Amino acid sequence: MLAPTERIEHDLLGDLAVPATAYYGVHTLRALENFPITGIPISVYPNLVNALASVKEAAALANYDLGLLSEVKMRAIVQACRQVRSGTAHEHFVVDVIQGGAGTSTNMNANEVIANLALEHLGHQRGEYGVLHPNEDVNLGQSTNDVYPTALKIATYAGIMQLVDAMGVLRASFERKALEFGNDLKMGRTQLQDAVPMTLGQEFSTFAVMLGEDEERLREAARLICEINLGATAIGTGINTHPEYAQLACRHLSDVTGIALTTSPNLVEATQDVGAFVQLSGVLKRVAVKLSKTCNDLRLLASGPRAGLGEINLPPVQAGSSIMPGKVNPVIPEVVNQIAFEVIGNDVTVSFAAEAGQLQLNAFEPIIAHSLFKSVAHLRAGCLTLASKCVDGITANRERLRAILESSIGIVTALNPYIGYTHSTEVAKEALVSGKSVAQIVIEKGLLSQSQLDDILQPAMLTQPRHVTASGRTDAAA
Amino acid sequence: MLAPTERIEHDLLGDLAVPATAYYGVHTLRALENFPITGIPISVYPNLVNALASVKEAAALANYDLGLLSEVKMRAIVQACRQVRSGTAHEHFVVDVIQGGAGTSTNMNANEVIANLALEHLGHQRGEYGVLHPNEDVNLGQSTNDVYPTALKIATYAGIMQLVDAMGVLRASFERKALEFGNDLKMGRTQLQDAVPMTLGQEFSTFAVMLGEDEERLREAARLICEINLGATAIGTGINTHPEYAQLACRHLSDVTGIALTTSPNLVEATQDVGAFVQLSGVLKRVAVKLSKTCNDLRLLASGPRAGLGEINLPPVQAGSSIMPGKVNPVIPEVVNQIAFEVIGNDVTVSFAAEAGQLQLNAFEPIIAHSLFKSVAHLRAGCLTLASKCVDGITANRERLRAILESSIGIVTALNPYIGYTHSTEVAKEALVSGKSVAQIVIEKGLLSQSQLDDILQPAMLTQPRHVTASGRTDAAA
Amino acid sequence: MLAPTERIEHDLLGDLAVPATAYYGVHTLRALENFPITGIPISVYPNLVNALASVKEAAALANYDLGLLSEVKMRAIVQACRQVRSGTAHEHFVVDVIQGGAGTSTNMNANEVIANLALEHLGHQRGEYGVLHPNEDVNLGQSTNDVYPTALKIATYAGIMQLVDAMGVLRASFERKALEFGNDLKMGRTQLQDAVPMTLGQEFSTFAVMLGEDEERLREAARLICEINLGATAIGTGINTHPEYAQLACRHLSDVTGIALTTSPNLVEATQDVGAFVQLSGVLKRVAVKLSKTCNDLRLLASGPRAGLGEINLPPVQAGSSIMPGKVNPVIPEVVNQIAFEVIGNDVTVSFAAEAGQLQLNAFEPIIAHSLFKSVAHLRAGCLTLASKCVDGITANRERLRAILESSIGIVTALNPYIGYTHSTEVAKEALVSGKSVAQIVIEKGLLSQSQLDDILQPAMLTQPRHVTASGRTDAAA
Amino acid sequence: MLAPTERIEHDLLGDLAVPATAYYGVHTLRALENFPITGIPISVYPNLVNALASVKEAAALANYDLGLLSEVKMRAIVQACRQVRSGTAHEHFVVDVIQGGAGTSTNMNANEVIANLALEHLGHQRGEYGVLHPNEDVNLGQSTNDVYPTALKIATYAGIMQLVDAMGVLRASFERKALEFGNDLKMGRTQLQDAVPMTLGQEFSTFAVMLGEDEERLREAARLICEINLGATAIGTGINTHPEYAQLACRHLSDVTGIALTTSPNLVEATQDVGAFVQLSGVLKRVAVKLSKTCNDLRLLASGPRAGLGEINLPPVQAGSSIMPGKVNPVIPEVVNQIAFEVIGNDVTVSFAAEAGQLQLNAFEPIIAHSLFKSVAHLRAGCLTLASKCVDGITANRERLRAILESSIGIVTALNPYIGYTHSTEVAKEALVSGKSVAQIVIEKGLLSQSQLDDILQPAMLTQPRHVTASGRTDAAA
Repeated sequence: MLAPTERIEHDLLGDLAVPATAYYGVHTLRALENFPITGIPISVYPNLVNALASVKEAAALANYDLGLLSEVKMRAIVQACRQVRSGTAHEHFVVDVIQGGAGTSTNMNANEVIANLALEHLGHQRGEYGVLHPNEDVNLGQSTNDVYPTALKIATYAGIMQLVDAMGVLRASFERKALEFGNDLKMGRTQLQDAVPMTLGQEFSTFAVMLGEDEERLREAARLICEINLGATAIGTGINTHPEYAQLACRHLSDVTGIALTTSPNLVEATQDVGAFVQLSGVLKRVAVKLSKTCNDLRLLASGPRAGLGEINLPPVQAGSSIMPGKVNPVIPEVVNQIAFEVIGNDVTVSFAAEAGQLQLNAFEPIIAHSLFKSVAHLRAGCLTLASKCVDGITANRERLRAILESSIGIVTALNPYIGYTHSTEVAKEALVSGKSVAQIVIEKGLLSQSQLDDILQPAMLTQPRHVTASGRTDAAA
Repeated sequence: MLAPTERIEHDLLGDLAVPATAYYGVHTLRALENFPITGIPISVYPNLVNALASVKEAAALANYDLGLLSEVKMRAIVQACRQVRSGTAHEHFVVDVIQGGAGTSTNMNANEVIANLALEHLGHQRGEYGVLHPNEDVNLGQSTNDVYPTALKIATYAGIMQLVDAMGVLRASFERKALEFGNDLKMGRTQLQDAVPMTLGQEFSTFAVMLGEDEERLREAARLICEINLGATAIGTGINTHPEYAQLACRHLSDVTGIALTTSPNLVEATQDVGAFVQLSGVLKRVAVKLSKTCNDLRLLASGPRAGLGEINLPPVQAGSSIMPGKVNPVIPEVVNQIAFEVIGNDVTVSFAAEAGQLQLNAFEPIIAHSLFKSVAHLRAGCLTLASKCVDGITANRERLRAILESSIGIVTALNPYIGYTHSTEVAKEALVSGKSVAQIVIEKGLLSQSQLDDILQPAMLTQPRHVTASGRTDAAA
Repeated sequence: MLAPTERIEHDLLGDLAVPATAYYGVHTLRALENFPITGIPISVYPNLVNALASVKEAAALANYDLGLLSEVKMRAIVQACRQVRSGTAHEHFVVDVIQGGAGTSTNMNANEVIANLALEHLGHQRGEYGVLHPNEDVNLGQSTNDVYPTALKIATYAGIMQLVDAMGVLRASFERKALEFGNDLKMGRTQLQDAVPMTLGQEFSTFAVMLGEDEERLREAARLICEINLGATAIGTGINTHPEYAQLACRHLSDVTGIALTTSPNLVEATQDVGAFVQLSGVLKRVAVKLSKTCNDLRLLASGPRAGLGEINLPPVQAGSSIMPGKVNPVIPEVVNQIAFEVIGNDVTVSFAAEAGQLQLNAFEPIIAHSLFKSVAHLRAGCLTLASKCVDGITANRERLRAILESSIGIVTALNPYIGYTHSTEVAKEALVSGKSVAQIVIEKGLLSQSQLDDILQPAMLTQPRHVTASGRTDAAA
Repeated sequence: MLAPTERIEHDLLGDLAVPATAYYGVHTLRALENFPITGIPISVYPNLVNALASVKEAAALANYDLGLLSEVKMRAIVQACRQVRSGTAHEHFVVDVIQGGAGTSTNMNANEVIANLALEHLGHQRGEYGVLHPNEDVNLGQSTNDVYPTALKIATYAGIMQLVDAMGVLRASFERKALEFGNDLKMGRTQLQDAVPMTLGQEFSTFAVMLGEDEERLREAARLICEINLGATAIGTGINTHPEYAQLACRHLSDVTGIALTTSPNLVEATQDVGAFVQLSGVLKRVAVKLSKTCNDLRLLASGPRAGLGEINLPPVQAGSSIMPGKVNPVIPEVVNQIAFEVIGNDVTVSFAAEAGQLQLNAFEPIIAHSLFKSVAHLRAGCLTLASKCVDGITANRERLRAILESSIGIVTALNPYIGYTHSTEVAKEALVSGKSVAQIVIEKGLLSQSQLDDILQPAMLTQPRHVTASGRTDAAA
């Protein structure tokens, strides 16, 4: 006799045939029919799937503590949740990343997969919900409205930590270059116009410092999403929950995830508020804005090889053109720019979705989640790619840096304290008209000797505050 | 002897082993290594893959016409392009949807797959590029900088036409409901406050008219993207192309695609300008904004069942809550709201990418394409889902509509011409305080008889301009 | 006896003392109290004030035609409206540009000022509304919900026409430079990397062509806002209006404004829909995006003078720095960039406000109007400033253009058809390593003679398609 | 002899006649000619003008400490700065809020006004810069690139503190209402569908809690902008400054402003980075998003009076319509919604401007400043207006709240633990079909007695977690 290929499940709309091999059930199947939007299942966000399993495990443990769930059921559910987190059942989380219903379908998908895995552990067939029920047991004491935002927070927290790590990798790459280029004097530019000298090391150090600050801001934003509303149930009043449930579940969830979670002091507010996601999205946008600026700078400094600034060389990673022999393009910074543009757009999506919340719930958390998960994952990929495929291999065009500096008029600013503003201005004007270098004119005019110039134009003298003594000699800052 | 599992290909970075079964080659493989961003290959956009094949076919035909490509090669390339458009080779378009390089990797991917398919048709092995070369033959007379934007335009055009069709389906659904609800009088609302009467049919008709206007705007925007830059090569100067190539290629491409394409009069401008995409994105945002407003209205009108407006019922499509028995939520409008929020965010991404173009090229077209393709595809899915899963099944709560109307004070506006502004104001005040209906008070005060009221409150009298005659009777507008 | 300094007016909240000298009345005064937001009165938008006066004049004429307004009142109102449009009473339009109420306060402000001006013409005191009433007479047959959007459309139309004129001025400036620089050969750049030659004239011509296209798109968007909803009254049903009123008022309004207006075929839809504003905002964003890209290019091409591209010089318009002698910055393109950023942000504001419309009305049109008026006015100022203060005075650094071109390797692409791809690649490699020019190497290797090179490197040969004959000579495209 | 009406000043472009009465000079006049964009002078931001004066005072004190500025000059400059902060000279800060040049014109305007005020204190004529010079003395040791961002931070800090105060006022208003409505039981709603009971007090408490959290987030963002780059001069290398200058100036500036400022550890990074502004803008957007959600809720809860939810009444503040007698609209929440939309758009402007920074400077800080100042000021006005004109006067429709609750089916959820899920579902179905109340059916069926129902439906039982004892009685949470 052949095994049946389907089983019949039931919901408020009637019966539906579920594939016999599916761990999900009728509610998931309805969602598949209702939301054929992107074709991308929520399993593309492993952090989310794992977070759902963590919430279900914590709830089961709390319900067991309160005497509301039997030990047998608790153990089966916990085993199923751990199995999910091991990664072997992710492909059964199939509902579309864009879905209506405030995450209900995602929660239902989790309840059903976990229930059927648990049933297997108990030696039962999938669908034998009389033994262990997706809603009655796996979802006991819960509501989508507290499970889903809690899972989003845990998943987002995990994603941010991964992103922060990747940013650290990129930062370290920039820091190594800052050290490597620490003595390479060059012209600094403001408003794209020649300004005053600096080192290429200072320029690269800036990229590193920016990342470091952003890592700190991300950690702060992550701390804000550690306040959860588990136990709020439908609207935050905790209707039908035991007075001790929320705290118990939170404690178990902290244990399961290793994240120091707290229960929000006002669960009605916490259930409808998505402010922490808006804030986080704003910080991700900040990261994107600055990463994009950094990539713009890299592309600008590497422009050329002949008709651009040509100060640095990005490592070639692929052919740039079929029509132009030998052309190599800055494709790695370019891809990071594009990730940044996506993240900035995602932030607007998050703003719209957050503003659209009404009364006791925000029904649009799925698109908030989708936007945040994309931003976090793509920024992470961008940082790692930028570090390994680009920054690590950057070299400096030292001769060109020096040539530009020497031909530059901007260096005259450094001579102000020695030859005075009036002489400086005259020298600047003559340099611009004649095409001669500032140094050449200063020596020709007998304003300074070559050795004086060499002294003044030492990197340490040019690239930090200095004390001009009465004798006209300078001391660098300590 | 075993078949080899790899073949060696070569580019400017050196040798690389390509899987023997792959139709793509070394350039595609480099791109796979360089852009591990989303994990989503460009094959998720079938319109784009087909458009690339169309461009390659048209170019081959033009090159053949000009005596630059042999008939044998031309026929092999054309056959390969048609094979791609038949859909059987889409899975070989594998580069990431987010990529650096202004689309170079996508173009390379297309060149390589088409070359290897063509080689098979010629009885050769994959990788025997001495016979037929991805760059020399498939890409002959082309550059990523004209091929890629041209393909994007064709792909987008196809997507828009599919979207317009879907909007037509949704519009027809609203039109049917407008007819069905044509006699259901209700209170109109401005600023969420009771205003004056209208019919539910008028309300639904509005949703249909909005869509119809948006379809027209999309068609206009589609016309703007029919101007292509094929023949521009690297920067629009058409360097190394035959003077007749651009026009010939355009004519062939129009034939292949069935779209009335034209060559831009200024190819330098056309090669760097992404204005048509920005405009299109703006129109998609318009569609999204209005579709979201429509869904907001549907959700508002269906709010309740007891504690909301409760004027219409959306068909239940899935259970709404595990904790609240019998709850059904407006999940279909909600998912469309979320698509709209995504599209609006995508528009900001497009703005950023467009503004970031520099000098002779916009290097960020891949993220523009990604954003537009998502917006178009998801809006289409949203319209079809909204029509079939929601609007088609909407019913009116006729008793409630009538009850609200009768209890409403707003109806007093319609009595102005009969009982005067002063009496109207008195009646309104008394209704608000006493809780009585306007009609009841008017009759109690003897201002109008029941039959007069019945005459005045006919739908045709209330929901359009009317001519009040000397005798106090009214005629509806013709 | 002293003249009284106040008069008492009345509304549904009670009595209020209005300054005796004010042309506005109680409703305007309430709005001043209710909306102390920006401190900026609507009179900063003269186009809006004039448009309101035009609508009131057209309504008065239509009401007179229909026998609903006496000739005496009509003449007084018309005279008042013309007085407003002459500009002498703009300072009495005092309500805040950001206001609640869907424009009601703006409409009330107009009704009151026009009524009091009309009363003066009739020889009466301000506030003698028994003779001629702001609501009963000036607002007769109207509602804020049809007057306000109609006035916005007329005002916006006027603003767009002014903007298009300013864009024309800027375009002409770019066209003159394109002509002036028509023979200045230079390196084109893609992805900021050296690509192939072009002329500086082609580069500037692109800026002109982009503007020309945007002017066309603005004109199209302007045509879409010529469809008005005057006659719709509260929600579009035209309640209490005469069946012929809408058409009559539209005809008079077309006469008064000189704009070919039409009445929307579905006034219920037209009253709640702000799609035309969203579309217009999208087109303004397109203009902004491209103008910003143009300014980015100007700043890049003018970067230097020594450490940048230095291909063009922007005219100095102010000192750039107190600390750096002789520094001049591209402040005019920079201010236009910033206008562009504002416009792009305004577009998001418009999207939010448009999406927030509910049921029969969008209550957020004031912020839509504010955003659009700012965008239009600032873009106009930016275009005129950019033309007169910057583009008109741009000069080319011809020697540098030539030097960069000659040192460039990218020029090798042009030699492909003469010396073949293999030789080209060798030459490119040697040039990059040795620092010699491509021309030098080609001659040293005996690949081409100086005269052949001179022939090939003629601008007309390099910057357009060309036909390579069997003899190896080329003909430029016709 | 008449006093001259002009004086001649000089800059690198030549001579220019400055009005004799002007405290500003030639650089300001150039800026007025160059930037005729909005017509709005920077004096509309008093916090900015005061901040500039504070920076100039601190710099003068530090320069005096270092022996670089004479006591006479220092005293005159300090006196002038205090005069500016007293508010009497604000009208001389005349450059346009939108300007090119990275704030140079604003800095120049400040230098000139302060120099001329100081000259007056010294008994000299305006323009006698030989005695005391705008650049040499007032700007000594400074650059726009450190002065301007430092002033922006101080100004923004002051603005945020004012905003936080206003939010506190609004929060207190909501808190008072939360207390007032603490016993008013009502139906909670999720996804606009009837959910489970809560109190109106809980609903208003949520609004207060949201504000409180946002105040905290703003304070955090404010702390981030207390890190300044004064002493960085042109690009952060501190060229030509004394090694102790930066710390000294920071200490004096902290004293002058009363803000605990610190000097950034990496001044090169700090000079080009606008991350703190991006972050702040993101937090302002968060405030806007949530304030808009709150206003949406208020408008929804107050919808009606008959055809809406009608749960609360907003105080009438002005007539709502000329055509509809007695209509009152929620104009105060509406104006706050519009402020929110503006702020969200401003955030996109800030993102664009921040991303556009290049190399050692962000030249677009003026539009960042303009956007932030508008957002902060308008949000503040919105909060104060919402509190005083709306929330303070809100009343509850207690009868309607109770009637909706009693007719609601959602209340059945609360009976689950007493009558079981199966009975609950039956009751829910019957209630929906029959129109009877849940309570009525439960009693009719004999499932519970009236006194049991009364016990279960106590607010304290319904609106928080509860412990169901074996006997079926419940205890509220402690």
